[in-house]
Formats: sequence, structure tokens, C-alpha cells
Amino acid sequence: MGYEESKIEGRNPVIEAFRSGRTIDKLFVLDGCQDGPVRTILREARKQDTFVSFVSKERLDQLSETRHHQGVIAIAAAYTYASVDDILDRAREKGEDPFIFILDGIEDPHNLGAMIRTANLCGAHGVIIPKHRAVGLTGVVARTSAGAINYTPVAKVANLGQTIDRLKEEGLWFVCADMDGELMYRTDLKGPIGLVIGNEGNGVGRLLKEKCDLTAAIPMKGDIDSLNASVAAGVLAYEIVRQRMG
Amino acid sequence: MGYEESKIEGRNPVIEAFRSGRTIDKLFVLDGCQDGPVRTILREARKQDTFVSFVSKERLDQLSETRHHQGVIAIAAAYTYASVDDILDRAREKGEDPFIFILDGIEDPHNLGAMIRTANLCGAHGVIIPKHRAVGLTGVVARTSAGAINYTPVAKVANLGQTIDRLKEEGLWFVCADMDGELMYRTDLKGPIGLVIGNEGNGVGRLLKEKCDLTAAIPMKGDIDSLNASVAAGVLAYEIVRQRMG
Repeated sequence: MGYEESKIEGRNPVIEAFRSGRTIDKLFVLDGCQDGPVRTILREARKQDTFVSFVSKERLDQLSETRHHQGVIAIAAAYTYASVDDILDRAREKGEDPFIFILDGIEDPHNLGAMIRTANLCGAHGVIIPKHRAVGLTGVVARTSAGAINYTPVAKVANLGQTIDRLKEEGLWFVCADMDGELMYRTDLKGPIGLVIGNEGNGVGRLLKEKCDLTAAIPMKGDIDSLNASVAAGVLAYEIVRQRMG
Repeated sequence: MGYEESKIEGRNPVIEAFRSGRTIDKLFVLDGCQDGPVRTILREARKQDTFVSFVSKERLDQLSETRHHQGVIAIAAAYTYASVDDILDRAREKGEDPFIFILDGIEDPHNLGAMIRTANLCGAHGVIIPKHRAVGLTGVVARTSAGAINYTPVAKVANLGQTIDRLKEEGLWFVCADMDGELMYRTDLKGPIGLVIGNEGNGVGRLLKEKCDLTAAIPMKGDIDSLNASVAAGVLAYEIVRQRMG
């Protein structure tokens, strides 16, 4: 697992990581710790809008690999993030209508990796993930993306809803998968499009669903509730590919 | 992980498991061990055509959870297998053309679980997996199938090629995914069909590929080689669903 490679432990290493511009996905700080270096780290974290979690010494010891965490452990992105503009530029350079994956809170790194892999192969221009309550670009994600992470830009944003609003101004339409929607084969999925895929357990959040222009249903003929999230993303993405080719 | 639940260790427990009719996926026996109880176990294993692996004491100790393996560890199926006839019967009962997943050596239990989940939801009548060099119905597979394993029959066969020959006599056509094939949207995937999905690393084996009537290509527009195996299975399965609905 490459995930471990991205753990940074101890005060100086964490401060250096922030100052070198490395993207920190998450910061664990010993609860109640208030001295100078820790305050410096928290200030850097605030600047970069890093998600901070205040935890017990037991939790830090458990997370620690070096046993020298000194009250702080940072989880660094294994890969760097792109911006939403990078993704739009990519579509523009190719002279194609933008096709973007919006992933609403994917928690399993294997699913995120598989989805970036799918995004790459179906010709999507990028993937947007939220900053909070979702897995970031860890080593496991990189590995399960089978290298796609080196080609397909992934942007991380503070608020998916606001990003969707902004992309609507750029002319994108948004479709989300939902069983109550119109059958995907009968939904018009051509043109500049954002494909919104929900979290493994709960699907697409209500607020985000309300922002979607279209709801497309994958036909379900079985006994259980839903497809695996990365399979659902693949099935919908390829329906978009089919319609774009036709 | 539910996988551990299905390890049976020690001579008497393993003999009992065989005699109770429980399906044993794999048997590990201490290399060189030839006494009475072990010979009894090997005889039972031969009767049920169980895959036997002769290993060193170090390997057994590593596999063991109880530390009382006495030279034998059996990996039991977490769920029971169906027969190929059960799968055909299911199609017949529903008055539908058979639609069967043939999985050629899937090694990752998460992929197998996701594929059984897809098979259930896309209306396939069952899944066929090989006895050797593939993961069986372990606890992890059961869990990642999200319950689909309780509804969709999974058959395990000694020789996938022979099973395909037999199913051809029942009128099935076989399609496998391959980049060199005809674009899947232009391949006729209606009628009684077997969808052959290859192993994560190597795709569909040569012998099996030669047995397929059709080769369908998923369009690939990206920089990397292939989709995740369970995503590829989902995309192809839903192209079959689309054509059957049309």
C-alpha cells in the first residue's frame, strides 16, 4: 500500500511540508496542544484550508509509523491536484465539449482509483472531488487508478455545489444517477456535461441532486439496491460515450 | 473481513467439514505429511475435486489463526455453489434467453463481489467461475456483493472451456471483451449469451478467447490500457441490457 508513503510525522517535517507547497489532505493534531510550533502548523493549515482533526494521544500513536509524531501527523496527497480551470482548458485544447466527473464523497480509495481510471478511458477531461468527507489522492488511489492519475486531472474543491454553479455558467449540464430518474438510454446526455456520482452508502446528496439538470436511471432488474459506485460510474459514463459517438 | 470465518484448521475439523458436505475451496497440507488422518483428508479432497496445495510449515503457520493447524488448513466457501443447470433453470423459469457471466480467473475478491452484484442487477441468470487460479465465494466476496450472492447463483467448474462447449449446445453465444474487437455498440448482443470477462492482469485467456463467437471492444479514448475488471464487466453487461431492451 502506497498510502503510508504520504504520512508526514513530527512538527518540523509537517511545517516544511506545508511551506514547500505540498498538498496536505488532512492534519491530525493532539487535542489540547497549544504551543508555538503547533500554532504555526494550525495557521498554515488554515491558510490552505486543510481539514484538521483534533485527536487523542492514543489515536495519534495508532496512526504513527515512526513513533515520533510529536503531536502532529499530516496526510499528504500522493499526487498534486489540478484546478477546475485546468480541466476546462483540457477540453478546450482538445476542441471537445467538457465532460467532467463530479464525485460526491467517495470514501473507498479503490473506488476513487477505479473511477479516475474510467474517467481517463472514456475520454472525460477531469475529475472533481470535495475537500471534506471524501478520500483524496492517496497512494492506494494512485495504484488502483492504474496510472490514470498521471494523465487525468483531479481537482479538489471546498464546495461541490458552488463548483457546479460555476460550471453551469460555462455551459455544462449536470446529470446524476438515481433510480427514480428517466431511463439513461432515453436521457439526452450529449453536449458539455458533468456526471455526478454519489457516495457508496448514500448516493448523491439532496442539495447536489437538486442542482442536477437531469436524473438518469440505470435499469435495475435484480434483488438488491445498487451497483458498486465505480461500476455505476462506468456504466453511466459509457452511456455518455455512446450518445456522443452516435 | 469475513474471509477469516471460512478457515478451518486441524485434522478433525477439516475431516468433519468435508463429511458435512461443506464446499472446500482449497486445502493446504504440510508437504511430506503422510499419516492416516492426513491420507483420509486427501482422499476426501480427491472425491470432491478440491484443489490441494502442499506447503511448508512456515507457510501453514503464517496462514494459521488458531496456531493449531496440525498440518492442515482448509479454506471453506462462505457460501454454497450452484450448478450450471441451476443457472439455466433460472432463465427457463423466467422465460428469458439465458444471460450468464463467465469469469476467467478473477483474483481480487472485491472485483468478484462487484461482478456478482452487477450480474444480479443487470438481470443475468448466474455467474460461472473456474475451480483453479481464481478467488472463490469467500466472506469478502459475499460482503462486496452487497447481498447479491444470496440471489444470483454462482457455479464453479473445473474447465471453463468445456462448460462453454456445453452451453453452446444449449444455444448460447459467447462474447468476450477485447480491444481488437468490433465496437460493442455495433456488435449484436441479443439472444442467449455468455459474457466472458478476463482476469485483472491478463484479460481473457487465449484458449477461451478462441471459443468466443464474438469479440466486443469497449471504446478506449485515454492514455492507459484497460478499465478495472469489474467496471469493464459492468459496461459490457449494460450494453447487453440496452440491446435486449431495444
